[in-house]
Amino acid sequence: MSDLSSLAQPHVPALHAYTPGLQPTESGWVKLNTNECPYGPSPRAAEAIAAEIANAGDKLRLYPNPTSAPLRKFVAKLHGLAEENVLIGNGSDDVLNLLVRVFGGPSAVTAFTLPSYSLYPVLVAIQNGSVKAVEFDRSMRLPVDAIAASGAKAFFLTSPNAPTGVAFAPAEIEAVLQRFDGILVVDEAYAPFANADCVGLLAKYPRLVITRTLSKAHALAGLRVGYALAHPEVIGLLDRVRDSYNVNRLSQAGALAALSDTGYYDAIIGKINRTRDHWSAEWSERGWFTYESQANFIFTEPKNAAGEAGPAVAKSLYEFLLSRKILVRYFPSHALTASFLRISVGTDDEMLAVEQAIQAWLAK
Amino acid sequence: MSDLSSLAQPHVPALHAYTPGLQPTESGWVKLNTNECPYGPSPRAAEAIAAEIANAGDKLRLYPNPTSAPLRKFVAKLHGLAEENVLIGNGSDDVLNLLVRVFGGPSAVTAFTLPSYSLYPVLVAIQNGSVKAVEFDRSMRLPVDAIAASGAKAFFLTSPNAPTGVAFAPAEIEAVLQRFDGILVVDEAYAPFANADCVGLLAKYPRLVITRTLSKAHALAGLRVGYALAHPEVIGLLDRVRDSYNVNRLSQAGALAALSDTGYYDAIIGKINRTRDHWSAEWSERGWFTYESQANFIFTEPKNAAGEAGPAVAKSLYEFLLSRKILVRYFPSHALTASFLRISVGTDDEMLAVEQAIQAWLAK
Repeated sequence: MSDLSSLAQPHVPALHAYTPGLQPTESGWVKLNTNECPYGPSPRAAEAIAAEIANAGDKLRLYPNPTSAPLRKFVAKLHGLAEENVLIGNGSDDVLNLLVRVFGGPSAVTAFTLPSYSLYPVLVAIQNGSVKAVEFDRSMRLPVDAIAASGAKAFFLTSPNAPTGVAFAPAEIEAVLQRFDGILVVDEAYAPFANADCVGLLAKYPRLVITRTLSKAHALAGLRVGYALAHPEVIGLLDRVRDSYNVNRLSQAGALAALSDTGYYDAIIGKINRTRDHWSAEWSERGWFTYESQANFIFTEPKNAAGEAGPAVAKSLYEFLLSRKILVRYFPSHALTASFLRISVGTDDEMLAVEQAIQAWLAK
Repeated sequence: MSDLSSLAQPHVPALHAYTPGLQPTESGWVKLNTNECPYGPSPRAAEAIAAEIANAGDKLRLYPNPTSAPLRKFVAKLHGLAEENVLIGNGSDDVLNLLVRVFGGPSAVTAFTLPSYSLYPVLVAIQNGSVKAVEFDRSMRLPVDAIAASGAKAFFLTSPNAPTGVAFAPAEIEAVLQRFDGILVVDEAYAPFANADCVGLLAKYPRLVITRTLSKAHALAGLRVGYALAHPEVIGLLDRVRDSYNVNRLSQAGALAALSDTGYYDAIIGKINRTRDHWSAEWSERGWFTYESQANFIFTEPKNAAGEAGPAVAKSLYEFLLSRKILVRYFPSHALTASFLRISVGTDDEMLAVEQAIQAWLAK
C-alpha cells in the first residue's frame, strides 16, 4: 500500500464505489436502465427555478435555507405529518447515507434483503459496518422470520422492491415491525406507482423510517431531492449528521413546486402504470416469467426462440438491445436476477422499440 | 436514553450539529454574517441554468453526470492540473466531510488550528474520531512546530484563516509540508481574495489537499459547489466514499458557466478587496486592533467610547448592530475571538450603514 493509502482508515482503500447505471452523454439512446421518468416533470418546477434565478441569479449569492424549511413543511402536510417527522436530503441516497451513519457503524449489523438496492452494502462498507443479507427465494415473498432474526440495528427493505417490482402490503410490513426490534427503513422510492404505502404505520411504530425520492415518479432525478419520514427523535438523530446546507436553493424551489402539482403527477403515474401493465401482460403471455410490478419498471425472464431461459439468454438479449442503442439493466451477480432483465417503463414509442428489437432478437 | 437513541451508534445522540450563521427569511437586513458575496454571480450562471431547464424542465428527469465530468475537466484546466486531480462536491463542506470519512475515524487523530472553521470538529465528532486543536497565539502566526508534532493523520488548515482573515504564505505552508507527515488539507475557501495560493505546491507534495468553494468569491452559496485539488490517489480514495450523484444538473451547469467568466470575478474581487482595505484601515486608525485580512471579511476588536476593548464591548456592539438589523458574527467561545467581531465585506452602502451604526453606538 502506498504512503497515501496507508493514511486512510484501513477499510477505505478496499472499498468499491457504487456503480450507477450508464448515463450516456450522446443522444440517440432509448434509455431504460435507471428508472427515470419517461415524461418531464411538472412545468411548475422549471417555473419556480426560473423565478429563483431572476435578476441575473442574484439570490444565488445567499446560502439556502439550512433545513429546507418551506419544502419540509409542505412534505409534512402532503403526508399528514408534522414538520418534525420530515428530513429533506440531497436525493434519497443522502438520506440512506445518513441512516447508515446513525444506525450503522463498526459495532452494528446493518441488514437488507437480497436482491434489493445495491447501494445499501456500499454505504455500510463505507461506514466499516457488518452486513447481513437476507435472501429472497424465487417467490419473492417477504422473509419475515429471517428479518426478525437478523439481529440488525437497522434493516433496509425496498418496497416495491428493486429490481423485481414486487410490493409488500402494509400488513406484511406491519408483521415485520411487530417482530423485528431494530430500525426498519422502508425505502419507498417506487411507492407512488404502487397500490399502497406504509405512511399510515408511522403513527403506531416509532422504529419505522420511510424514505422517498423525487427522482422517479416526480421526474426530478437531475435535481437530487429525497426525504425521510420518521419519528421526531429519529429525525433529530439524522439531523445531527446531516450537512447543514445539503439541498441547494434551486432544488428546494423546484421540488416544492413539483410536489404541489399533484394532478399532473396523478396523470403521468397513471399512464406509466398502464404502459407497465400492458407490456407485463404481453411478455407474460409470451411465456416469459414476469413479476407483478408495482414500480415503474418490469423485471422479466426472457426466453429465446428455442424456449430456453437462463443467464446466457438474458445476457444475449441485453447485448442485442445494447447493439440497437437500447439500454436496460442486467444483474448477473445473483442467481435470482441473472436470468432476468429490468426494463424501465418508457414512452409508448420507446416500449415499441424494445418490443421490435425483441422480435428481431427472436428471429435471429 | 430512549429506545430509539439506544439503537444509534453510541456517540451519535451526544453530537451537536454545526450551527450555521443566521439566515433571516424576512428582508430589510444588512447581512454581513456568513461571508456571502455582496454582488451577484456572473450572469452566465443564471443563463446556463435557464438553458438546463429549457423545454419545461424536461432534462431534469435524467440523472446528472455522476462525476460532474465537464465541470471537473474545466476546474482542472483552470488550475493547470489533470482531471484526476479534481473532485467536485456539493459545496466544499461535502468535500471536507469526505476527507474526514477517509482520513479520520475512530482510530485516527484529526487536527486543526484554533480558531478556524468550526465545522471541522463537528465532522470529526460525527465520525467518532479524536480531535486535536493546535492553538494560535494573538499574533496568529502559523504554529508550524505544533502542527508537525500533532500526530494527526489529517490536519485542516484554513488559509486565509477564518475568522481572522490572516493568510499564510505558500512558503510557510511548505514548511509545514516538509515537517508534518500526514495529509495537510489547506482550506482555501477565501484564497481568491488573497495575494497567493498553494496550488503550485501540489506537484511537489502528494500529501497536500486543497479545498475550494464557489460560495464566497463566486457568489454561488445558494448553488452548493466546491471542490478538492489533490494527488490522483487521494481523489480516488475520496471518490470511494462520495455519493455517486452528489452534485445536481443545475449546480454543475451554473458552476461551469460562472468559472468561465474570469473577467467578471476579477472585477468584483478587486472591488471587495478595496472595500475591505478601506474599512480595515479606517477602523485600525480609530485604534481598533484589526488583523490584516486577505479574505472577504474584517476581524476587528472594537473599543467603546471610553477606549475599552474586551468581550463585553464586542458583545455590546454586536447587539447594538443586531438591534439595527445589521447582522455580523460574534464568536464568544474562545479567548482569542471573544473581543472581536467578524464583519463580512458588503457593498459600499452596507459598509456605510455599519459605520453609521458604530458612530451611534460610540455616541450612546
